[in-house]
Amino acid sequence: MIIVMKQDAAKDDVTKIVAKIENAGLKTHLSVGEEVTIVGVIGDKTKLDVDAIAAENSVQKVVPITESYKLANKKFHPEPTSFAVKNTFIGPDNLTIMSGPCAVETEEQLLCIARAVKKAGATILRGGAYKPRTSPYSFQGLEEEGLRYMKTASDETGLATICEVTSAHAVESAVKYVSMLQVGARNMQNFELLKEVGKTGLPVLLKRGLSATIDEWLNAAEYIMASGSQNVALCERGIRTYETSTRNTLDLSAVCVLKERTHLPVIVDPSHATGVRSYVEPLAKAAVACGADGLMIEVHNDPAHALSDGPQSLTFEQFDSVMEHIRPYAKLAGRTL
Amino acid sequence: MIIVMKQDAAKDDVTKIVAKIENAGLKTHLSVGEEVTIVGVIGDKTKLDVDAIAAENSVQKVVPITESYKLANKKFHPEPTSFAVKNTFIGPDNLTIMSGPCAVETEEQLLCIARAVKKAGATILRGGAYKPRTSPYSFQGLEEEGLRYMKTASDETGLATICEVTSAHAVESAVKYVSMLQVGARNMQNFELLKEVGKTGLPVLLKRGLSATIDEWLNAAEYIMASGSQNVALCERGIRTYETSTRNTLDLSAVCVLKERTHLPVIVDPSHATGVRSYVEPLAKAAVACGADGLMIEVHNDPAHALSDGPQSLTFEQFDSVMEHIRPYAKLAGRTL
Amino acid sequence: MIIVMKQDAAKDDVTKIVAKIENAGLKTHLSVGEEVTIVGVIGDKTKLDVDAIAAENSVQKVVPITESYKLANKKFHPEPTSFAVKNTFIGPDNLTIMSGPCAVETEEQLLCIARAVKKAGATILRGGAYKPRTSPYSFQGLEEEGLRYMKTASDETGLATICEVTSAHAVESAVKYVSMLQVGARNMQNFELLKEVGKTGLPVLLKRGLSATIDEWLNAAEYIMASGSQNVALCERGIRTYETSTRNTLDLSAVCVLKERTHLPVIVDPSHATGVRSYVEPLAKAAVACGADGLMIEVHNDPAHALSDGPQSLTFEQFDSVMEHIRPYAKLAGRTL
Amino acid sequence: MIIVMKQDAAKDDVTKIVAKIENAGLKTHLSVGEEVTIVGVIGDKTKLDVDAIAAENSVQKVVPITESYKLANKKFHPEPTSFAVKNTFIGPDNLTIMSGPCAVETEEQLLCIARAVKKAGATILRGGAYKPRTSPYSFQGLEEEGLRYMKTASDETGLATICEVTSAHAVESAVKYVSMLQVGARNMQNFELLKEVGKTGLPVLLKRGLSATIDEWLNAAEYIMASGSQNVALCERGIRTYETSTRNTLDLSAVCVLKERTHLPVIVDPSHATGVRSYVEPLAKAAVACGADGLMIEVHNDPAHALSDGPQSLTFEQFDSVMEHIRPYAKLAGRTL
Repeated sequence: MIIVMKQDAAKDDVTKIVAKIENAGLKTHLSVGEEVTIVGVIGDKTKLDVDAIAAENSVQKVVPITESYKLANKKFHPEPTSFAVKNTFIGPDNLTIMSGPCAVETEEQLLCIARAVKKAGATILRGGAYKPRTSPYSFQGLEEEGLRYMKTASDETGLATICEVTSAHAVESAVKYVSMLQVGARNMQNFELLKEVGKTGLPVLLKRGLSATIDEWLNAAEYIMASGSQNVALCERGIRTYETSTRNTLDLSAVCVLKERTHLPVIVDPSHATGVRSYVEPLAKAAVACGADGLMIEVHNDPAHALSDGPQSLTFEQFDSVMEHIRPYAKLAGRTL
Repeated sequence: MIIVMKQDAAKDDVTKIVAKIENAGLKTHLSVGEEVTIVGVIGDKTKLDVDAIAAENSVQKVVPITESYKLANKKFHPEPTSFAVKNTFIGPDNLTIMSGPCAVETEEQLLCIARAVKKAGATILRGGAYKPRTSPYSFQGLEEEGLRYMKTASDETGLATICEVTSAHAVESAVKYVSMLQVGARNMQNFELLKEVGKTGLPVLLKRGLSATIDEWLNAAEYIMASGSQNVALCERGIRTYETSTRNTLDLSAVCVLKERTHLPVIVDPSHATGVRSYVEPLAKAAVACGADGLMIEVHNDPAHALSDGPQSLTFEQFDSVMEHIRPYAKLAGRTL
Repeated sequence: MIIVMKQDAAKDDVTKIVAKIENAGLKTHLSVGEEVTIVGVIGDKTKLDVDAIAAENSVQKVVPITESYKLANKKFHPEPTSFAVKNTFIGPDNLTIMSGPCAVETEEQLLCIARAVKKAGATILRGGAYKPRTSPYSFQGLEEEGLRYMKTASDETGLATICEVTSAHAVESAVKYVSMLQVGARNMQNFELLKEVGKTGLPVLLKRGLSATIDEWLNAAEYIMASGSQNVALCERGIRTYETSTRNTLDLSAVCVLKERTHLPVIVDPSHATGVRSYVEPLAKAAVACGADGLMIEVHNDPAHALSDGPQSLTFEQFDSVMEHIRPYAKLAGRTL
Repeated sequence: MIIVMKQDAAKDDVTKIVAKIENAGLKTHLSVGEEVTIVGVIGDKTKLDVDAIAAENSVQKVVPITESYKLANKKFHPEPTSFAVKNTFIGPDNLTIMSGPCAVETEEQLLCIARAVKKAGATILRGGAYKPRTSPYSFQGLEEEGLRYMKTASDETGLATICEVTSAHAVESAVKYVSMLQVGARNMQNFELLKEVGKTGLPVLLKRGLSATIDEWLNAAEYIMASGSQNVALCERGIRTYETSTRNTLDLSAVCVLKERTHLPVIVDPSHATGVRSYVEPLAKAAVACGADGLMIEVHNDPAHALSDGPQSLTFEQFDSVMEHIRPYAKLAGRTL
């Protein structure tokens, strides 16, 4: 951490800051320049009250040098993480495909979709039972009933399953039925939920918040890991920008940044990122090309009658075709699909 | 709602869409142009599956005309809402000042701050007992102990109190101690929390999400209102943009937009919006000038030792001075302070 | 400037960086920490090739401490700048009102508007003769003919005048007819135009780019000042964000930031920022309340027939009313209007 | 175009709007709903004053249905455009590689880089002679001298060349020396420059503005095409967002959107988009995978001594390796490299 003093800071101001840091058991290096004085801080910054230092009138800015996340940090865990979800793996050797409907609607629908996505090559069945919807008057999901259908579909097809959870209560139910928990974009900084999810020890998919920085995202993963679950995958699903041609702006450079900063696997969701069916295939290929460990793709037996997010869902035929076209990209990337 | 068909949509495609809408009990108006055909939809859109229509291949776009929120909508409730919080009011006649520390630290600290902000003219004491922090290793608040101190401070000074809640569990505790609940920016779309908060019937302050649109924000208010609490105030606290000179970008035009769309009162928080102490006064004045019903301002007895958000907190002297400078603006705006 | 070395940088890497800096005639301060080594750079950074240092594999990041703009910098010119535009002044004692139509249409129209805005209290007549329009098929302005009308209106009413220039050719014409040149948002980083404008020595209004940071904006002002014109005013006109309720997001905190970093006057344009007539008055008041030195407000004799930007233009009656309501705010701010 | 009337609009208001449209020679379709009245407009909208209609008090909003660009529009030109640049082609059959230094520094440097990039497979040499720099005190390019070096390098190696132009004056010089003109991000809406560039008839690369929407970008292309040059390629180079881990956020979904809306070729520049050398290869692969017609990649003989943008430049060895790794992706995409 570096503390940049204001240009008009007096010697006494600097002394005061230095004392504050050294009293907390850390060391300092002074660099007195013609324009400004800089105080370098050496040691364990968790012992230090950074906001209090930034609050001093004599301080211009505080520049962090090291990251606040540790368990998720590649520096302390250089090898990429791989973990099992039921009988499949997420990690550097595979291209994991998570597919299914946005919302679970009926048992028949889910079984029918599960068989289709399995046949095409997916290994994890996704399906929403708790839907965070902008309006209180929109369909909010089948809740526990939907989870039961997920279990039935898993039992019948052998697919692993993943469901979004939106409250401590939903976590409690979900652990009984599904293989992996998902934290959605709107809850990425619902820290109480992150802790609940972490306590289950189940694998977790953490979607990026609508306007979360990569560092905030990794700190959210740290919440889950510090609570118990070490098996966290990060899911890029588009960020909010001024551009309205796509629902969100898919940030594929985030895949590259994550690969440098963390050992956790990275999944890309081109369906939610764009909200447009025809963009799913090209961006799925792009995601694989730049290093993603998996894809989340929405599939529906009848997109025009889907209860949620129809416009971006693929039909079975479309999904088959996308999977076929992705295979050579997975091969190029050295991943099993 | 207007449905714009694709340029190459066939007559049959249009017939299919029209049938779908009329089967749901709504009426349509066709407008067949040289370039495109437009289907106007008339009637109660909650009966209609909008996503399913947007998912049709023949549809170019769906343009919403009316808002999805009703209880929060000015159209159905043209008079501005005013409501009591303990012995004070939030509404068009007052300029409500909510002040206090970012985080409650000790009973002495809180009492000392409560007395100071009361003397300067604040009527609601703010103080965080549950702190949503980016890193799991940062101070997370005193929880129920902090709430108890809030109650003591309220009992002694007569001030109303407000506390952020971050989980169903926190809501359960908070109702025993404070006058008003706050939902923070990171939880604005934590819909389960919104429902819990709404069920208490207490007045609620709903902060705008980091990158929430005004319509998403009003829909979040609708969640609370539909669950029970009609007394919701909206708090603009800056949105996330590319500009880094301030922590967030305070969106004062949102105050104007809200005054057109909703009857709910609007509070502005210049402390969190900017993160810079010296910008609090000018932006507080600006907020009053453009129609805000209140201000949330952080005050601390010793900002340089605050456990959270010191850089933006005002000292007692600074707060006294800000209050004195705001009074003529409140008077110009026809509000009691 | 501070250079943060990568954690795995060798001693030799540091030595190489230090040598590079000292060879350029600057001094360094080393701060060797447990985690990272930091090189502080002292002296005139314009002698140094910063990009080349950032390009070294051993360097993690380069943190600028001092600003790259000098003429526009408050540090070297602490007193607020005030300058004459024809027979009026822009500076800390006045609230300058620049009003008129978005686009000059006819001589009669302009004269009629000029008389109306003068009567209401404006001192500078604005009017576009060169219009930067998104589509090549939209009305592009009357060009030199429009400038002539501006001169006529100025001669008749005594108002100073301001016109946007969009090319070296337009600058050449404009100097013959108007009192002040305007550089529009889309040309804020058209550096060749900035130089041309600076060479005229005329007062200049520099609008903020659609997504320009405050530092980029001040560097753009520096281009003008380094080319000759010292009399630059900065105009906040909204930035581009994800929010679509207003055309742009008016960033009033920028007024506060500018007042700390520069001595140049700051004008606020609520008309272009919001694109909505009814938001002009409340945001104009807010701008005055937080320290703006002036306002730019669009006025049109017949907004519903304006050739450009009608929706945000005020009628004469509306403008009279806005001016009347702003007066007490100007008085509170200690400014003559 | 659809005009949505305000809920409280009177019959007379609607009649007035309809008359206005029909007087301009267009037809209307009325759709009178329970909530709102909608006026559909049929015919050539360029005859209509859209802003004037939006300015009417009775109008809630105007929704455009058809695009304002025609020459760039895929609807009127469904086949993808292919065009020659010296002895190479940009279009659907090739993967065009444009490589070279950010800024031209010396003749030797440029020749050395030209030979290296040619050997690795590039067909167009890029090199800046006019550099738009944020600060007036940064290196601004060799200007005409740099253009001469580009010509020499082209003559010697046979490579086509591309140079950014920043003013009418630079255009005049550049046409004498280079094969293709580039308009940079900061000048994307410098409409006077777009017209000058269009008049030359040379092929043009139009970079996306820092925060330009895709429609604004296509309208900028329309300016060039309407002025004469039909051979325009669009270059995605990252947009400005809140995320700071990369210099800009590369928007690869824009490639998909452009492929639907325009017949013009699309180039992707991962070097400027990210500003980080190690992200160039993965994002170059991703760009090819999602349909890009070419790549612009910065290469420098000695990045640590580059006069501009060193941190993102590749060395010759790195560029050779990137090219080798991209080849199988070009092959998969059915493109010659």
